[in-house]
Amino acid sequence: MSREEFRYHFPLRVRFAETDMQGIVFNGHYLTYIDTAVTEYLRHVSYPYQEMVKSGCDFVLARVSCDFRSPAHFDDLLEVHTRVVELKTRSFVVEFEIYREGEAAPLFTASSVYVGIDPTTKRPTPLPEQFRQIVGSFERLP
Amino acid sequence: MSREEFRYHFPLRVRFAETDMQGIVFNGHYLTYIDTAVTEYLRHVSYPYQEMVKSGCDFVLARVSCDFRSPAHFDDLLEVHTRVVELKTRSFVVEFEIYREGEAAPLFTASSVYVGIDPTTKRPTPLPEQFRQIVGSFERLP
Amino acid sequence: MSREEFRYHFPLRVRFAETDMQGIVFNGHYLTYIDTAVTEYLRHVSYPYQEMVKSGCDFVLARVSCDFRSPAHFDDLLEVHTRVVELKTRSFVVEFEIYREGEAAPLFTASSVYVGIDPTTKRPTPLPEQFRQIVGSFERLP
Amino acid sequence: MSREEFRYHFPLRVRFAETDMQGIVFNGHYLTYIDTAVTEYLRHVSYPYQEMVKSGCDFVLARVSCDFRSPAHFDDLLEVHTRVVELKTRSFVVEFEIYREGEAAPLFTASSVYVGIDPTTKRPTPLPEQFRQIVGSFERLP
Repeated sequence: MSREEFRYHFPLRVRFAETDMQGIVFNGHYLTYIDTAVTEYLRHVSYPYQEMVKSGCDFVLARVSCDFRSPAHFDDLLEVHTRVVELKTRSFVVEFEIYREGEAAPLFTASSVYVGIDPTTKRPTPLPEQFRQIVGSFERLP
Repeated sequence: MSREEFRYHFPLRVRFAETDMQGIVFNGHYLTYIDTAVTEYLRHVSYPYQEMVKSGCDFVLARVSCDFRSPAHFDDLLEVHTRVVELKTRSFVVEFEIYREGEAAPLFTASSVYVGIDPTTKRPTPLPEQFRQIVGSFERLP
Repeated sequence: MSREEFRYHFPLRVRFAETDMQGIVFNGHYLTYIDTAVTEYLRHVSYPYQEMVKSGCDFVLARVSCDFRSPAHFDDLLEVHTRVVELKTRSFVVEFEIYREGEAAPLFTASSVYVGIDPTTKRPTPLPEQFRQIVGSFERLP
Repeated sequence: MSREEFRYHFPLRVRFAETDMQGIVFNGHYLTYIDTAVTEYLRHVSYPYQEMVKSGCDFVLARVSCDFRSPAHFDDLLEVHTRVVELKTRSFVVEFEIYREGEAAPLFTASSVYVGIDPTTKRPTPLPEQFRQIVGSFERLP
């Protein structure tokens, strides 16, 4: 895979508070990075998270696999490449590749499954048709 | 001041994730430590936070002053000495001193003001009379 | 799998600061939970992390897969069941199951691969023989 | 005081992971916000933190006072107005005011004291003369 296959990336700079005593970004913060990237992705495709929730569907992370390939450091400028690769009735799959600016190989890759839930009952609920259309069209999914 | 003046302390161990690249606990985590100590303090005096919220009063941090006297490190066993020093109608003041186990001088001290808010409207609201009685009696406040 | 298959678990209580606006523990904090459990596991088998680093071998998370089965909430008492299931020359695999106290089904499961690195050069390095013996014997690995 | 008195501000957007179950930014994250603002301030005045450390002087937070005036929420666009108001031999004082974009009143204000330390020995050390000149000139301090 390569970054050319992504139609969106979110830039961010590593904060001092995100480093640990090994001098690298603590692994848990990568989940914050990809979570933030999903928010920005939805804004980018003009279907902001808040609009989705208002329409009656929130979502939660159900599964994630992460590969930590090389460490990120304080002040690194990162690009969180983000794309939705699958849209099901009640869930969607997002792939992430994080690159240090100017580098050819990702330092982190992940694949996440998010499940739609009712904001009030917190029970699984189908994803909004509008979400599926907008994202499916942006990603040119079948 | 000294730890003898506190009737409660909460023990905690510094997590790896709380350190930063300077090899010490990142300053922001101390606010998590004292927040957690308030939760445990309320459990200790048998007036758990959840009961307070159910009774119609939540609270938020309105002001805090912190002194970082010496750094805490990974795996340190800390004691968060905690006491309520003032109970007003809509707010209360808590003092904290954090000691590394077995040490005479605190490595961190703080004073916080919390304000009662209505859990629904989020507007300031008087603290529950029961809270004031229980805490006032525990601390022997006038 | 069930918690009977684990010879160690680390108890922890969910902090307020670990919740998010959905009212549940934010997913990234689970990586802090399992990281902390590994530290406590090593202390439990009498081969503390600090001793391992002093002996010339640190380690980093290389890969992790997480299943978020049901949410944890503020003040939940959790048990992070932890076991090493594989010991290779330069890496080891740890499995985690997190249960809410008293519940039969885990709310979170994960599998992590950690890689030994030289604390100074940060390059991959073989795991200490002592580590492999102590952990292998504790887990009754072949 | 008002934002006109600040010559620098750092923009940031509140991340989902920074909210808590009260639906607002958890207080500890404000210390991350101001820490990040100091890093960006130093970059802005062309004396990056990394350069300061290389020159033999790191610094740590010694004291901070914070006023939480009104809550910040998920996705808010914030401006962290930042200015150095005092330069001593071994310490400097920074004031912060955080505004939600477009609002007249700050939702958070703080004053911090940072102390220079030797990166190796971690003992207090005088601030670099270059730091004092550059920042003093930027802020038009006497």
